Amino acid sequence: MADSVYKKITLVGTSENSFSEAASVAIAKAAETVKHMSWFEVVEQRGSIVDGKIQQFQVTLSVGFRVE
Amino acid sequence: MADSVYKKITLVGTSENSFSEAASVAIAKAAETVKHMSWFEVVEQRGSIVDGKIQQFQVTLSVGFRVE
Amino acid sequence: MADSVYKKITLVGTSENSFSEAASVAIAKAAETVKHMSWFEVVEQRGSIVDGKIQQFQVTLSVGFRVE
Amino acid sequence: MADSVYKKITLVGTSENSFSEAASVAIAKAAETVKHMSWFEVVEQRGSIVDGKIQQFQVTLSVGFRVE
Amino acid sequence: MADSVYKKITLVGTSENSFSEAASVAIAKAAETVKHMSWFEVVEQRGSIVDGKIQQFQVTLSVGFRVE
Amino acid sequence: MADSVYKKITLVGTSENSFSEAASVAIAKAAETVKHMSWFEVVEQRGSIVDGKIQQFQVTLSVGFRVE
Amino acid sequence: MADSVYKKITLVGTSENSFSEAASVAIAKAAETVKHMSWFEVVEQRGSIVDGKIQQFQVTLSVGFRVE
Amino acid sequence: MADSVYKKITLVGTSENSFSEAASVAIAKAAETVKHMSWFEVVEQRGSIVDGKIQQFQVTLSVGFRVE
Amino acid sequence: MADSVYKKITLVGTSENSFSEAASVAIAKAAETVKHMSWFEVVEQRGSIVDGKIQQFQVTLSVGFRVE
Amino acid sequence: MADSVYKKITLVGTSENSFSEAASVAIAKAAETVKHMSWFEVVEQRGSIVDGKIQQFQVTLSVGFRVE
Amino acid sequence: MADSVYKKITLVGTSENSFSEAASVAIAKAAETVKHMSWFEVVEQRGSIVDGKIQQFQVTLSVGFRVE
Amino acid sequence: MADSVYKKITLVGTSENSFSEAASVAIAKAAETVKHMSWFEVVEQRGSIVDGKIQQFQVTLSVGFRVE
Repeated sequence: MADSVYKKITLVGTSENSFSEAASVAIAKAAETVKHMSWFEVVEQRGSIVDGKIQQFQVTLSVGFRVE
Repeated sequence: MADSVYKKITLVGTSENSFSEAASVAIAKAAETVKHMSWFEVVEQRGSIVDGKIQQFQVTLSVGFRVE
Repeated sequence: MADSVYKKITLVGTSENSFSEAASVAIAKAAETVKHMSWFEVVEQRGSIVDGKIQQFQVTLSVGFRVE
Repeated sequence: MADSVYKKITLVGTSENSFSEAASVAIAKAAETVKHMSWFEVVEQRGSIVDGKIQQFQVTLSVGFRVE
Repeated sequence: MADSVYKKITLVGTSENSFSEAASVAIAKAAETVKHMSWFEVVEQRGSIVDGKIQQFQVTLSVGFRVE
Repeated sequence: MADSVYKKITLVGTSENSFSEAASVAIAKAAETVKHMSWFEVVEQRGSIVDGKIQQFQVTLSVGFRVE
Repeated sequence: MADSVYKKITLVGTSENSFSEAASVAIAKAAETVKHMSWFEVVEQRGSIVDGKIQQFQVTLSVGFRVE
Repeated sequence: MADSVYKKITLVGTSENSFSEAASVAIAKAAETVKHMSWFEVVEQRGSIVDGKIQQFQVTLSVGFRVE
Repeated sequence: MADSVYKKITLVGTSENSFSEAASVAIAKAAETVKHMSWFEVVEQRGSIVDGKIQQFQVTLSVGFRVE
Repeated sequence: MADSVYKKITLVGTSENSFSEAASVAIAKAAETVKHMSWFEVVEQRGSIVDGKIQQFQVTLSVGFRVE
Repeated sequence: MADSVYKKITLVGTSENSFSEAASVAIAKAAETVKHMSWFEVVEQRGSIVDGKIQQFQVTLSVGFRVE
Repeated sequence: MADSVYKKITLVGTSENSFSEAASVAIAKAAETVKHMSWFEVVEQRGSIVDGKIQQFQVTLSVGFRVE
């Protein structure tokens, strides 16, 4: 096994429904331009409130991908 | 845009089903007495276990609202 | 009320569907050998990515149980 | 069990004798106006020094109470 | 010196000019309703960006005041 | 001096009187089954409140012992 | 409101005069190549000293911008 | 009030009886050589275990004193 | 891929030569009794000093292994 | 380039006007007795409040200087 | 000295031999595409275990480089 | 065993070869003026980069020594 190198980027995904969906939204968007994504870590979970209800779930992810 | 001031309070919501529902429960309860809630941050996620199963999801939120 | 003592262990549950399910999977597995589990705390949330999609949700839990 | 909501407040108790007494002083004072207090967490321990001796123990507590 | 008790609240002040001014704005607003404020701690510094320039400085403060 | 290996376990001791006693209670219980305990670190201090008074002091310890 | 995705980058701005100016310098430089910057968070504040005086203020910012 | 400057030093006090006594022991020792001590903060609490019992309480303090 | 569960334990390895060797010593000792070890995380690095020289390197590891 | 060694000390500077001035005050005072100061890091920002207004800005700095 | 701006990226280097080599591997890979790298900070140290032995050392670095 | 008091100082050692050597360099330098050093803790690991290669390893240590 050769000695690989990975780069990590930080993304914030959003969703009106859940943190899980917000995470999937972020990964899907990143997949348009980033190859070889391998893992993610949840860094922060927050959201916006409108009229006394949660309007948007926001999850910050640190995503690692192999550098070719 | 005038210089606004916000206050943050800390709430713990609970639910038998999920952390997401626990968060919604906390925000809904706070909405009964607090106006102008604008955002929340997840501070802690824990829960109780009974008979080897998760009985209650507990999520601690820091909630910001504009002070009039 | 006698002065109880608790021990805490650290588990990582995994699931293809959600962090909530990953937590339940870890608690269920521990219940096979550990009695008197009382509460858990979420320590870390991460996951693996394959072909640009979340493949596995991984949640690290600190679980407390009463020592007899 | 209905889904309860808790609020957390932050208090600083002081005592000339010990951190434990400082914690009790803070809880006793809060009990004058806050009902349903359920648990506390120690956030910080510090104190003042006068003439080379500890003059006052100061303990910061985060206190949770059930919201009716 | 009697054993005093303090309460801490969390505020977010904002300003178009600086973090220092944002802090002063928060303290001034709180002074309208809170007596005996004694000290503050900077918890977080952030801000908004519009058209490539800092539009608003936002500072989160933890403010301690003596409880009578 | 041979190169020793230690293992660390996490315990929560409880006491109606003080954090110090809660720590001693946890160490005494562990001593029933664990040999060669060498040091402990205080990880968390919290407690329960009943009728406006501290009912139980709870201290979480990380305890190190030599592995034979 | 569609589910947006944001990316966060980390910048270090420098200034001979103040942390505020250092932050503005970093944002201005980033604006040359990054569009849709929306917010920043102060991560670290440090500086260099020469001949017993502060020579340079250095502020590390985490900057979020919307991904198109 | 002139603009004062304080220096902070880190001490570890020890005691066979309690963390409180360990803190007092550290402050008393420092008072032999350091003047104008003004406040302390508890940084860490740990201890040694011998024969299944707490042998020594060790408390790390950060102590501030005014520089003349 | 079935949903696996992992357990994490905390070990302290020691070595007179380096932190790397201390880590290897800890893993080797654990391998005598623990199967399916999969990864480790460095939690803390410290050491003892005797006669003005580093006598022992001590590294605390969190080690994950699959639960059958 | 020889292998240099640096020592770090912790200072708290105060000012009635700003955190920046408080930092400069601390560095200037230290320069009276400490040579070869090279860099500083902001560790904490707090302040005192009197009559509802910020009376004093207090900044804790970790300052590094080369040991000859 | 003009007011410079730096950008920080996060890399994970791997090596079968040591954390030091893993760090060098990451910097060498980054040097293929990034100019003006100036400093790095170790963010995390972990590794994989196979058959009871450390198989790979993994070090996460935050690397700063000057933006032209 | 009398109740000892320890003081902790913070040092930064540097080396062109490794973090381990950087730690040894710091301890050796401190040994010239500090007696009774007993233990050290690694606080931070960083380094400088020149021409795409690690030029210097820098390790920050907190060192404890007994006060007579």
